[in-house]
Amino acid sequence: MKKGDINVNEIKKLVTAELFDAFKATVAKPKIAFTPALLTRYIDHTLLKPEASIDDVKKVCEEAKKYRFASVCVNGSYIKFVADSLAESDVKPCAVVGFPLGAMMPEAKAGEAFCYANNGAKEIDMVINIGAIKTSDWRLVHNDIEGVVKAVQGWAIVKVILETCLLTDEEKVKACAVSKLAGAHFVKTSTGFSKGGATVEDVRLMRETIGPEMGLKASGGVRTYEDAVKMINAGATRLGTSSGVSIVSEEQEKTSPYKCVNCGSCDKECPSDRAAVIKDTY
Amino acid sequence: MKKGDINVNEIKKLVTAELFDAFKATVAKPKIAFTPALLTRYIDHTLLKPEASIDDVKKVCEEAKKYRFASVCVNGSYIKFVADSLAESDVKPCAVVGFPLGAMMPEAKAGEAFCYANNGAKEIDMVINIGAIKTSDWRLVHNDIEGVVKAVQGWAIVKVILETCLLTDEEKVKACAVSKLAGAHFVKTSTGFSKGGATVEDVRLMRETIGPEMGLKASGGVRTYEDAVKMINAGATRLGTSSGVSIVSEEQEKTSPYKCVNCGSCDKECPSDRAAVIKDTY
Repeated sequence: MKKGDINVNEIKKLVTAELFDAFKATVAKPKIAFTPALLTRYIDHTLLKPEASIDDVKKVCEEAKKYRFASVCVNGSYIKFVADSLAESDVKPCAVVGFPLGAMMPEAKAGEAFCYANNGAKEIDMVINIGAIKTSDWRLVHNDIEGVVKAVQGWAIVKVILETCLLTDEEKVKACAVSKLAGAHFVKTSTGFSKGGATVEDVRLMRETIGPEMGLKASGGVRTYEDAVKMINAGATRLGTSSGVSIVSEEQEKTSPYKCVNCGSCDKECPSDRAAVIKDTY
Repeated sequence: MKKGDINVNEIKKLVTAELFDAFKATVAKPKIAFTPALLTRYIDHTLLKPEASIDDVKKVCEEAKKYRFASVCVNGSYIKFVADSLAESDVKPCAVVGFPLGAMMPEAKAGEAFCYANNGAKEIDMVINIGAIKTSDWRLVHNDIEGVVKAVQGWAIVKVILETCLLTDEEKVKACAVSKLAGAHFVKTSTGFSKGGATVEDVRLMRETIGPEMGLKASGGVRTYEDAVKMINAGATRLGTSSGVSIVSEEQEKTSPYKCVNCGSCDKECPSDRAAVIKDTY
């Protein structure tokens, strides 16, 4: 990584307290209109446990296509399989990079991202360099993100996982500003592998920092329909969860004007077109 | 990854029950003679938490040189700094790869390992592809390890982390055999980031499988002098721990024929040359 790659003064301006206030003042309030019918399109259907087998991944892909989730988010080892499985659908293949510690060398992280985009990933969820944040090496934090963004440019969008539970509020704000400056498309709260997950307060703070256009993914501990709605109302545009199916089921029960009458004539889709039948066991 | 890269029959022979018994019969019992004075040379002084700052890493390097630990084991982001810090010592710089989930694509894992060896790593601790084990894709497990071994050949030795707490005994045995066949120099029990760490039973099983020559690192939960001695007696030749300094202090207290008399004239080394003064606070 060459020195002088980035304009450090530009970051500094963004992240000093006074100028950050000015930056915030230019940012409109979030204008997220949450339509329950679209909830599935908010969900990154997620399977990241290291012991997941190919059969587990297959199941997640089938569910994602059935419910039209936004993406299937997996470890890189499975990205080619997922990309092939989702080829005919509008569900995006998403791979994590530098996951879950974020402590790889920037070159290795960019190489990993390139490898997955080259194998079909349309979305990359990378973990920020937390140690560099703690060292106040914002140049490294920036270059690390920019390296990944450039490695997959034109192929995939990049979400930057801050691991908010390990950061102070000031660090969260700076990390958001640097992610935006480095060209990332989303900031994301958590890996789900550390001490804590997404909170409404963090999502609100992050949304206020990044402004209305950039993507924001709440992840870690999003397990119910209520969690999902809270996060969206706080400013999230994407939800990372392994509970997508049960969240959507809960949603259907709560929001559908039609109730399934269990007439027995359907085969997983209601022939009357009035009720969304979403139970696998039906 | 091209098909035919490896002789799958060779692995199968090694890992079927009958032939594994034959394989075991050829393996002598471990001949590890544990000399307490050498305990420091067993220890990989470890700092892997993602929020570690450069100052934390600096401290670990200083401690490792002072106590002559075997290595300093860090995340890749710090490997160049560690290699520079340890340049004049016999403590090896060690970086983790595919850590801690092991679920990267083989190409990305090999690329990461190359990157760290190219920046001074003399030891690479890689995580095995656990999902491939659960899918019984032993070809992938093998190629993944071999890719890393080849990427750093002549520069660094490779330790394969099995994450034993996620495996059955049969899978542990097969993973040891495949690691050996793929050219790894060590097998290692745990990342320290999953449900459990090293156990005496696992270390014994792994030593019986790999034979007397290959390295074996016990890691995860090794925190006391007693833990250390148990693991070494069960067959470990290396210990991964962040408690190296306190383990060695405990050892000195238990095994030194000389006790520090706290004469007040020393500056961290006893002028009488009779007692190893090992307390930082002294």
